[in-house]
Amino acid sequence: MSYEDGKILGPTQNGERYELTSPTALPKAGGFLWNQKMMIQATCRGYATAQFMQPEPAKYSHAPNIEARTFMQPEQNYYAHHPGRFVYVKDEETGEFFSAPYEPVRAPLEKFVFSVGKSNISWTAEHLGIRVEMILGLPTDDVSELWTVKVTNVSGEPRKISMYPYFTIGYMSWMNQGADYREDLGGVVGSSITPYQKADDYYKNKYLKDKTYLLCETLPDSWETNQDAFEGEGGLHAPSAILELELKRGDARYETPTAVVQYRVSLKANEEREYRFLFGPAFDDAEILTMRSKYLSKEAFAKTASEYAEYMSQGRGCLQIESPDKELNNLVNSWLPRQVYYHGDVNRLTTDPQTRNYMQDNMGMSYIKPSVTRQALVRALSQQEPTGAMPDGILLIEGAELKYINQIPHTDHCVWLPVALDIYLSETADYALLEEKVPSKNGDEYTVLERFSRAMDWLLSSNSRDERGLSYIASGDWCDPMNMVGPKGRGISGWLTVATGYALNVWSSICEQSSKFDLATNYRDGAKQVNEAANRHLWDGDWFARGITDDGVKFGIKDDPEGRIWLNPQAWSILGGAVSPEQRKKVMKQVDEHLSTPYGVLMFAPPFSGMREDIGRVTQKFPGQGENGSVYNHAVVFYIWALYSVGGEAEADRAYGLLRQMVPGPQEEDYVQRGQLPVYIPNYYRGGWKEFPRTAGRSSQLFNTGTVGWAYRCLVEGLCGLRGVKEGLRVWPQLPGDWEGMRVTRLFRGARFEVDVKRGDVERVEVKVDGKIVPEGLVKGVQKGETYKVEVVVPRRG
Amino acid sequence: MSYEDGKILGPTQNGERYELTSPTALPKAGGFLWNQKMMIQATCRGYATAQFMQPEPAKYSHAPNIEARTFMQPEQNYYAHHPGRFVYVKDEETGEFFSAPYEPVRAPLEKFVFSVGKSNISWTAEHLGIRVEMILGLPTDDVSELWTVKVTNVSGEPRKISMYPYFTIGYMSWMNQGADYREDLGGVVGSSITPYQKADDYYKNKYLKDKTYLLCETLPDSWETNQDAFEGEGGLHAPSAILELELKRGDARYETPTAVVQYRVSLKANEEREYRFLFGPAFDDAEILTMRSKYLSKEAFAKTASEYAEYMSQGRGCLQIESPDKELNNLVNSWLPRQVYYHGDVNRLTTDPQTRNYMQDNMGMSYIKPSVTRQALVRALSQQEPTGAMPDGILLIEGAELKYINQIPHTDHCVWLPVALDIYLSETADYALLEEKVPSKNGDEYTVLERFSRAMDWLLSSNSRDERGLSYIASGDWCDPMNMVGPKGRGISGWLTVATGYALNVWSSICEQSSKFDLATNYRDGAKQVNEAANRHLWDGDWFARGITDDGVKFGIKDDPEGRIWLNPQAWSILGGAVSPEQRKKVMKQVDEHLSTPYGVLMFAPPFSGMREDIGRVTQKFPGQGENGSVYNHAVVFYIWALYSVGGEAEADRAYGLLRQMVPGPQEEDYVQRGQLPVYIPNYYRGGWKEFPRTAGRSSQLFNTGTVGWAYRCLVEGLCGLRGVKEGLRVWPQLPGDWEGMRVTRLFRGARFEVDVKRGDVERVEVKVDGKIVPEGLVKGVQKGETYKVEVVVPRRG
Repeated sequence: MSYEDGKILGPTQNGERYELTSPTALPKAGGFLWNQKMMIQATCRGYATAQFMQPEPAKYSHAPNIEARTFMQPEQNYYAHHPGRFVYVKDEETGEFFSAPYEPVRAPLEKFVFSVGKSNISWTAEHLGIRVEMILGLPTDDVSELWTVKVTNVSGEPRKISMYPYFTIGYMSWMNQGADYREDLGGVVGSSITPYQKADDYYKNKYLKDKTYLLCETLPDSWETNQDAFEGEGGLHAPSAILELELKRGDARYETPTAVVQYRVSLKANEEREYRFLFGPAFDDAEILTMRSKYLSKEAFAKTASEYAEYMSQGRGCLQIESPDKELNNLVNSWLPRQVYYHGDVNRLTTDPQTRNYMQDNMGMSYIKPSVTRQALVRALSQQEPTGAMPDGILLIEGAELKYINQIPHTDHCVWLPVALDIYLSETADYALLEEKVPSKNGDEYTVLERFSRAMDWLLSSNSRDERGLSYIASGDWCDPMNMVGPKGRGISGWLTVATGYALNVWSSICEQSSKFDLATNYRDGAKQVNEAANRHLWDGDWFARGITDDGVKFGIKDDPEGRIWLNPQAWSILGGAVSPEQRKKVMKQVDEHLSTPYGVLMFAPPFSGMREDIGRVTQKFPGQGENGSVYNHAVVFYIWALYSVGGEAEADRAYGLLRQMVPGPQEEDYVQRGQLPVYIPNYYRGGWKEFPRTAGRSSQLFNTGTVGWAYRCLVEGLCGLRGVKEGLRVWPQLPGDWEGMRVTRLFRGARFEVDVKRGDVERVEVKVDGKIVPEGLVKGVQKGETYKVEVVVPRRG
Repeated sequence: MSYEDGKILGPTQNGERYELTSPTALPKAGGFLWNQKMMIQATCRGYATAQFMQPEPAKYSHAPNIEARTFMQPEQNYYAHHPGRFVYVKDEETGEFFSAPYEPVRAPLEKFVFSVGKSNISWTAEHLGIRVEMILGLPTDDVSELWTVKVTNVSGEPRKISMYPYFTIGYMSWMNQGADYREDLGGVVGSSITPYQKADDYYKNKYLKDKTYLLCETLPDSWETNQDAFEGEGGLHAPSAILELELKRGDARYETPTAVVQYRVSLKANEEREYRFLFGPAFDDAEILTMRSKYLSKEAFAKTASEYAEYMSQGRGCLQIESPDKELNNLVNSWLPRQVYYHGDVNRLTTDPQTRNYMQDNMGMSYIKPSVTRQALVRALSQQEPTGAMPDGILLIEGAELKYINQIPHTDHCVWLPVALDIYLSETADYALLEEKVPSKNGDEYTVLERFSRAMDWLLSSNSRDERGLSYIASGDWCDPMNMVGPKGRGISGWLTVATGYALNVWSSICEQSSKFDLATNYRDGAKQVNEAANRHLWDGDWFARGITDDGVKFGIKDDPEGRIWLNPQAWSILGGAVSPEQRKKVMKQVDEHLSTPYGVLMFAPPFSGMREDIGRVTQKFPGQGENGSVYNHAVVFYIWALYSVGGEAEADRAYGLLRQMVPGPQEEDYVQRGQLPVYIPNYYRGGWKEFPRTAGRSSQLFNTGTVGWAYRCLVEGLCGLRGVKEGLRVWPQLPGDWEGMRVTRLFRGARFEVDVKRGDVERVEVKVDGKIVPEGLVKGVQKGETYKVEVVVPRRG
């Protein structure tokens, strides 16, 4: 794919990388790398946001002032002194200079390439006849950034240049900070003490990695470790220090530290030099030395890159497609499973994920590493409360605490248990899990099956439902948080009511598969009652209401001028069976009419323009942003899954259309409006399409989102129609109308399915394996290690 | 005073302002203004740190990222996007531009003046033939900045320029932020919602002033409210938007807001234009309109300035001197009482001042507005605990909470009660206060006298002393905090032990003056026991030890390689009477030898280079900074007061020398090294004189400090020797040896003392009032409204 003048971007030929050839077209566009101990998000212009776990998220490259410790922010803004990694280049003969990749000098570049790969991120910047290439990689199991910087003289003449890698250390601590160049370690070390007031916190902080190092494989000619001394009166865009012949080798003593090193280089025409650096946090000198000897050489960089690529390849997923839609192919084959893997691999780098997130992030892992899903299910159940309720967050390490939103009572956590288990069982048929015993810290012990039933009983109990059979919302449910609907304990969630119906039905089916027929009947009946209650009290004529406040005010209804119709209650009423076929048609029509935008389906509309005190925080967010009427992809995927679950042609077309809207492009304008590369699905695109058209569609730039497990499911089980059931693999693709066919490779229970889907003159889907028709499209007796050639014929559209 | 090429600074002729004529000489130098609702610190280069109370400290001009909410930081660093107030000026004919006062463009200026006054702060910047003058003032009783901006064409030719006042709004909130130009209000309004997670916090936040306005008296020709749109690719030093003819009138929608307005002006030679602006926070449009109509006119600005000057003049203090030392005269006559006034007036703009700070800040107010001191004493006592102990902080408003350091148990708070009362009674002789009844929230009620005795009893009780009679330190004492000395309840504070002696003696004297002779004897005996215990267990041969840890390790002793000798135990052993005359000589010699530096006396030496786990946080601060071996002025003034209390000539000389070291200058190098103007005494100057000579002497730039009440006392009662006693004013000046005399005006109990001090051939100080010798220098029967002419002859030095 290419754009006018190569201006914007495209995937590389094999779709393994995305490239951007202008630093100004999508200023915030970036990529991210991670391992289980750290994460870094790097932008095309050179800014970077990195965090590591010790065990709570911490930073080693800081802002210039004291940053609040908080969660990742949507649409994070950048500014001159935002942390970043840069290389200044000065022509020693003319004094001219620029910086790679673009910031902080922002010189006009002759060539620029920002290239996001799955295992590394790279930049190329060319100016003044000098090309700078920067590559960022990570180790698999340590916290450090591995940087390769290559300079090449492309001017055709001999050149004398100075090159200055500049890595932000920033304001480390108000208690103690400083920096030195350390001859013995071969680089700059910034030192600090994490501030504390209480003596107890000293013991908590004592072993924190309070040092930040920049280690140089090739020892530099000079250096500066003092931010003010480096900038001088010139400022970051033209630092005074680089106007001098050599940096002044200054120290920082309770002054803002920095890490700048200088290489004075003579380059013949076309000559190139390569440098390697490590940048990261450490506890002490010994650890810095260990990191140096472990990683800082050409050989070690190559070995680490290959190990990291191997680590990433574990997240390649279970699906490869060749469809007529190249953007979709790229997303499915390269990027989406990577994002799913990230979620299951590191749980968003928090020590107390919300239970709802933890279940959904690990649910996606069923397609990648189901053993991780299994562990997560057991871990979550081991924290089940004696009542059967699930806590607001799952603690992942000893000493972790529930923080932020996890201190606010939400009522939906039990719903996610069967949802996640369903997918895990589809992929593995590991029904033995249900008999496993899980002790909890409360001292009780139940089997997985018992714990699930207890959770479902809790959803049906008077703890969580009122006398009408409607589910309480307390301080919030999935949409975190409409926090004033039900704090008095009476307010109702319309969504949670119909979602309870879905959870009960799913659990009932699992019980059925496990031959627990009494239980199955019991929970099926429960679902029926729930759905009847929803219809009796929440059906608003054309859609389901979003809820009822503590004071009995129904909302998300026709009469509301704002927040009139919400997507979630509609999607889950389809999933859970609360709708009749007639209602479903109405609902889908209304969703189209009220919620469709060029960037996806809105979470609700119209957005709230101000506070409704009976509903709460969601209405104080900026209209069209976050939870206030954006295209909240996590809600969109529920709807897509609901559409696929219907099984109709119109629904399949609509589902495909919505999936495609999650990927920016292929039109340049769309990339620009969204402001991101299609290397991940963000948690939202801005809404407010009618109210704020200038900013509508803009990406949150946040890649943490429960969206991705569901999106992958929609592709694997919906569009490709390759869903596991107890007996084997059910094949039932739902191609969009204008596709004539597709080829799919699906890994399933250790076997390989090579599936060729074509249209043909059939009444209904016809599936052949190794030339033989398979009844109901159900391939039974799947053998590990086998390859199955599957031919599928789907009916032509009328 | 003037410097080579007028490069640095000087006070104006009458000492009422300090001026700086280079923006780069002292980059962080600034001044501050306040009223009871807000405070703003503005630097010579245009950066500003402002906060207001609602009721907790809040901001209306923010950093570009999410700032931690924390206390004011020492040596705060600035960076390109630090909040500030600037005016860009563009020549419309040539396209050249600069910014006043200096940041963000940093153009070379032909003329620069930064002028700190007591009632306003002003800047003059001249470049490209255009002079920009900026004046910042505050209202007396509202939160807003009043800005006057004058542009003058000094080029001698007609000019066409654009002028762009640019006021930082910054990152207001991750929940909701935006900005618009509001024709109806006549300016830019940034809007936001203070983020919250818990529904309860919504109700707390609901009425916060979440809007930031820039109102323009003269409506601008154009504007920009979107930070990114303003900067473009040019950056803050060369914003893309000002390269265009007109600003684009953009809005900010969940984007970082800014306030930039444009005036396109044709100026004849020497023509000038004057503009006025209001900048501040508001709850809603109505409040913004009210502020506009109340303040935004030439007349209202003049009226407000005059009211504010009147408000400031209430803090002019009780002392005017004409001494041979002009810097000291400036400090005493203009700046120090202003800083004392600030502390007593607004209690550092916190809702929970530390009890120790609250007492000392209000103690200084005895010289300015003693009624405030009286109220503060009563308020503090009303929060006394049932045991007689004082809490760690005094809550000033309903709903305030103890925060930060106030959550850490400190043991010294009771000591400050008699210290503050002593000065209050000296100034007022208001012994009736002692009989006043003070109820507390505990339901008990005692007279002030009883409450004081209860506090002293607590200091003597087994709650606060061990079986040896030494005072426990718990998690800290004055030096906040050596927080691991005594958390187990056994560790000892050497300082607190001798300070208890002082407190008891002071209280005993007050009891004596009140004819409570039994009480007086009782507490005098207590002091004696305390001092004996100190001598028995803490005297280390040449000085008093700093303390003993929970595990019995004595520290602040000869054998310690770091933290060997501490100033406070020595100063207070002199004050409280623990030393014999021989010990005092030893102590003073050791203080000189170990602790003297060109910037003052160190709090202790040598500084700690690393953690001593039995002592705690102080040793994790950067060596020579803050509490880790800096010139901590608050400790220095105790020592100065102790020197004056001795009454010897050598002590008076030394005391004067130390007072002078608190004021930067008069040598240019000293200003540069300290990095501040002498318009306030900072809480510390950096130590580490031997270890880190480059940074030693540098000012913390923090003007919140308990130092100033004591410094003023040292000047009034020590150097000038004009101390109140029950019967009247005792006159006993302690001039430094090389002074031949001085003239002093002292306001005291409503009377005016015009004092002329000269050296003469007398054996001891001789005092005449209206020509008549006054025995013991004690002027009795002071009459309100009277003026006393006092002639003092002090002995010539031998």
